[in-house]
Amino acid sequence: MKKQFTKFIATAVLLMGSAAGAYAGEAGNSVVSSILEVQAYNRAIHIMAMLLIGFGFLMVFVKKYGRSAITATFLLVSVSLPMYLAVKSLGIFEAKGEIEQFILAEFGAASLLIAAGALLGRIKMYQYIILGLLFIPFYIFNELVVVDDYFNFVGTVADTGGSIVIHAFGALFGISAAISLTTRKARETAILSDAVSDRFSLLGSMVLWVFWPSFCSALVPVEMIPASVVNVFLALSGSTLATYFASVYLRGKIGAADIANAALAGGVAIGSTFDHATHTQAMVIGLIAGAISTFGFAVLQEKQEKFHKIVDSCGVSNLHGIPGIFGGLAAIFVVNGLNTGSQLKGIGITIAIAVVAGLISGKIVSLFGKQELLYDDAAEFEDAE
Amino acid sequence: MKKQFTKFIATAVLLMGSAAGAYAGEAGNSVVSSILEVQAYNRAIHIMAMLLIGFGFLMVFVKKYGRSAITATFLLVSVSLPMYLAVKSLGIFEAKGEIEQFILAEFGAASLLIAAGALLGRIKMYQYIILGLLFIPFYIFNELVVVDDYFNFVGTVADTGGSIVIHAFGALFGISAAISLTTRKARETAILSDAVSDRFSLLGSMVLWVFWPSFCSALVPVEMIPASVVNVFLALSGSTLATYFASVYLRGKIGAADIANAALAGGVAIGSTFDHATHTQAMVIGLIAGAISTFGFAVLQEKQEKFHKIVDSCGVSNLHGIPGIFGGLAAIFVVNGLNTGSQLKGIGITIAIAVVAGLISGKIVSLFGKQELLYDDAAEFEDAE
Amino acid sequence: MKKQFTKFIATAVLLMGSAAGAYAGEAGNSVVSSILEVQAYNRAIHIMAMLLIGFGFLMVFVKKYGRSAITATFLLVSVSLPMYLAVKSLGIFEAKGEIEQFILAEFGAASLLIAAGALLGRIKMYQYIILGLLFIPFYIFNELVVVDDYFNFVGTVADTGGSIVIHAFGALFGISAAISLTTRKARETAILSDAVSDRFSLLGSMVLWVFWPSFCSALVPVEMIPASVVNVFLALSGSTLATYFASVYLRGKIGAADIANAALAGGVAIGSTFDHATHTQAMVIGLIAGAISTFGFAVLQEKQEKFHKIVDSCGVSNLHGIPGIFGGLAAIFVVNGLNTGSQLKGIGITIAIAVVAGLISGKIVSLFGKQELLYDDAAEFEDAE
Repeated sequence: MKKQFTKFIATAVLLMGSAAGAYAGEAGNSVVSSILEVQAYNRAIHIMAMLLIGFGFLMVFVKKYGRSAITATFLLVSVSLPMYLAVKSLGIFEAKGEIEQFILAEFGAASLLIAAGALLGRIKMYQYIILGLLFIPFYIFNELVVVDDYFNFVGTVADTGGSIVIHAFGALFGISAAISLTTRKARETAILSDAVSDRFSLLGSMVLWVFWPSFCSALVPVEMIPASVVNVFLALSGSTLATYFASVYLRGKIGAADIANAALAGGVAIGSTFDHATHTQAMVIGLIAGAISTFGFAVLQEKQEKFHKIVDSCGVSNLHGIPGIFGGLAAIFVVNGLNTGSQLKGIGITIAIAVVAGLISGKIVSLFGKQELLYDDAAEFEDAE
Repeated sequence: MKKQFTKFIATAVLLMGSAAGAYAGEAGNSVVSSILEVQAYNRAIHIMAMLLIGFGFLMVFVKKYGRSAITATFLLVSVSLPMYLAVKSLGIFEAKGEIEQFILAEFGAASLLIAAGALLGRIKMYQYIILGLLFIPFYIFNELVVVDDYFNFVGTVADTGGSIVIHAFGALFGISAAISLTTRKARETAILSDAVSDRFSLLGSMVLWVFWPSFCSALVPVEMIPASVVNVFLALSGSTLATYFASVYLRGKIGAADIANAALAGGVAIGSTFDHATHTQAMVIGLIAGAISTFGFAVLQEKQEKFHKIVDSCGVSNLHGIPGIFGGLAAIFVVNGLNTGSQLKGIGITIAIAVVAGLISGKIVSLFGKQELLYDDAAEFEDAE
Repeated sequence: MKKQFTKFIATAVLLMGSAAGAYAGEAGNSVVSSILEVQAYNRAIHIMAMLLIGFGFLMVFVKKYGRSAITATFLLVSVSLPMYLAVKSLGIFEAKGEIEQFILAEFGAASLLIAAGALLGRIKMYQYIILGLLFIPFYIFNELVVVDDYFNFVGTVADTGGSIVIHAFGALFGISAAISLTTRKARETAILSDAVSDRFSLLGSMVLWVFWPSFCSALVPVEMIPASVVNVFLALSGSTLATYFASVYLRGKIGAADIANAALAGGVAIGSTFDHATHTQAMVIGLIAGAISTFGFAVLQEKQEKFHKIVDSCGVSNLHGIPGIFGGLAAIFVVNGLNTGSQLKGIGITIAIAVVAGLISGKIVSLFGKQELLYDDAAEFEDAE
């Protein structure tokens, strides 16, 4: 966004270096920059479709917890957007355009939804709200350190689409919070889906797939968008194909949850490189991401849940955690001139902040009560059969 | 694509031929105005998603009437868009751009869908079509009087996003029409939902939430769009949060229909002020709208239905009627330089026209038959279990 | 809107009164062409929503085959997009812009999804992938002959929105492939839907309806988009209304599948003429298309399936085949200066290539195995009840 505006200021100066009067210059430039901002707004709408309909319905896979999952999504988004904008308006941050700031808030909401996916069905509705209030300041702090390099400590990190700072951050925060928010009973309760909840979940998955390029390219300069979005689509195509083959290979039959989730791993992993990769590289990153994500769902998840004594309701570790970190590492091989140390520092700091913040937040949220009836709308909804 | 690029090279050559006179000016200008019209088209598509998928699926909450609700939505949209465009082409109206005219037609369709929501499940499929044919001329008449101030009687009304002329008009028309279209039997028949119909309804709700900023800002000047759309999102966030708290407070548990409906009340109420309010004002309007809408669903609806001896199937009075009028009144406190008399006149005239038009139309529609099997696809669909 | 245009006229006059240099011209021009390409990208996203969510969920109408239908859609899209882009990068084709090429790939994927609709539920998951690999080269060959007129044999064909080369091609390919892919058992197995699968199918239908104008106008010059998209909406309104009346007339009651499918026939049929027709012509084409498509579903399908000894799972013959050819023929009466011989040649060649290619591909796919458990997720999915 900023780059776009800078470019336009430059262009405008040249244009207006002519006999054109100052007034005409300002008028023409302001119209073009308004057009660009409205184009960014279109991407903001696409991201909003991902946040509510995409993440929301992906989580409807829990058979009896659909109304709750959707309501939780509504509340998480509605608390995190104003919270993010409020914190950013405190005056200690760099001023940004209205839509750019809003898109950054949406990124924060996305990361929060990922974190909440690890806890889905085990906390009360108001605890999702508390989770959101706790999450956003930590998320902004990590953004400040890693993306804005506020302390001049990290250097430049390749992560425009948020493999590291959105996906991995959210997943690790959620898993860490799960440590205080998983009872023995929860570990013994199966999370069931059925034919209806699976179809809703696949709907959410498709919404995420379709709009993912707008998520990655939301703040990319206008002239880089075409190649970037095709890369994202190719990465998604790669992970979708790999997921099908890996699912059949590892399970014998297709797992519906693999398709709904791991098919998206290409989008998660390409976030650090989509604006630099060739089309072939994008496809390969997607293929690998789909395979490792499916491996996570089919093989690792059970082991990890036992090891950490947690439940990761939506398997965010496998969809956002591992593919996110893989994507961040892939940038080292793909992005020309990238400082390996900076990239590794960015990943390491993000992991550290996410884990500590998740542990603290999980503990605090756990003080606000315990959901007795797990993964069930009847706990909090009227007339829920 | 190629043609576009070729055209631009040509345009550029002309433009930069510096001596360029009026002809080049017109060419460059026409490209920019085309770009702006295509941006408006994007918003028109967003509104169309709201009309069909949003309103359509929101009404799928009736357990056994889903196929009918969707088909009714299809027919209401398909009859009202051509009808609106046909009436507006009669030559007595101001000429407008292709997309602007189309967006105005979509606004009319939205208002019609709101009106039909009050009658859902109680009229036959062809009666929805007749309802649409009757509604559009009345709607255009109100638009002419209040928005266009054709008779120089009202003055300027703040209502760009249609709190008054779209939402309140549709709701009052529908409730008035319900007086002739609610039998004793209908008043004794419960409108049931279930876990599947609730999830579909929440899907419709989310589609409306996501695209609402494009609805409000559809015809707003390009440079005002960024601040405007953020206001709409903040109002929706406010109403979503307020709905959750109010629902739990008033019912003890969460009502799924409250979330699906009242969460949108911020969008309804902000329609008169989103292009003038500060972000804080937008959030506050949303919070209040969500609270009063939930109060309507949880407390008022039953009383009102008894008082008027009607059934308001979708509770349009609580989602569109009361929040719409509240939004129109809020403008008096928010919009600088607004003439209070004009705003009140606009609200009053809209209410008067909607009520009279609804009473007449309901009576006429009732002459075309009576649906015996209520709220049930089996009445008109093949093989509907 | 009007204010924007006025502002631009003022701006343009001022800008052009100047003597800007060539460099400034190029810079400004490149920004404008980037803006136009991002606008095309928006339409590409709309088309992607149609491919995955639209076609995908439309096919969820088969009661027990929903997870499979969605997974097949995911795989067909994920294999065909990279395949198309790979073939087109071989160097024997005209170079095109990134987004234009991608949109052409999406058109190919759409045609493939139509073809697969004829076979839905009767082939294994990996056979969908093989089908995609076989389909794309044939599709590109037909595109080369008919659209690009590579052999200077056909002349100019009116088919910007693909009534002929996308819809009719896909349908005829699918029906021809069905000849080798329909067992006696398949002909005796009923394809059942239920209240849930019908609602999902109608959701897919609505997604297709909403975004159809972006499909047709994806590669249309910017200044022609406004009138074009309104034509598409009017054609869809026409077919939706005609479908309702025809369905009730032919069946006595409404068929949910008629509404989900035939309501879209206006979109199929207007593809050859939407950029040339008047609004009235568009509406009439839609009305006729809806009526003949419903007639196809209600009357012809059973006869045709018996005659060819096939099953056409989704009725693609009635939605895409007949309305597609009707649309191609309608252009002869609607498009000024169109060479009738060229248009007929285009239709004839498309039919010929599609039939031959479908027969060959169906035979090849049939060599890769036979699905025993028909129209049922349990054949390939874990835990599918």
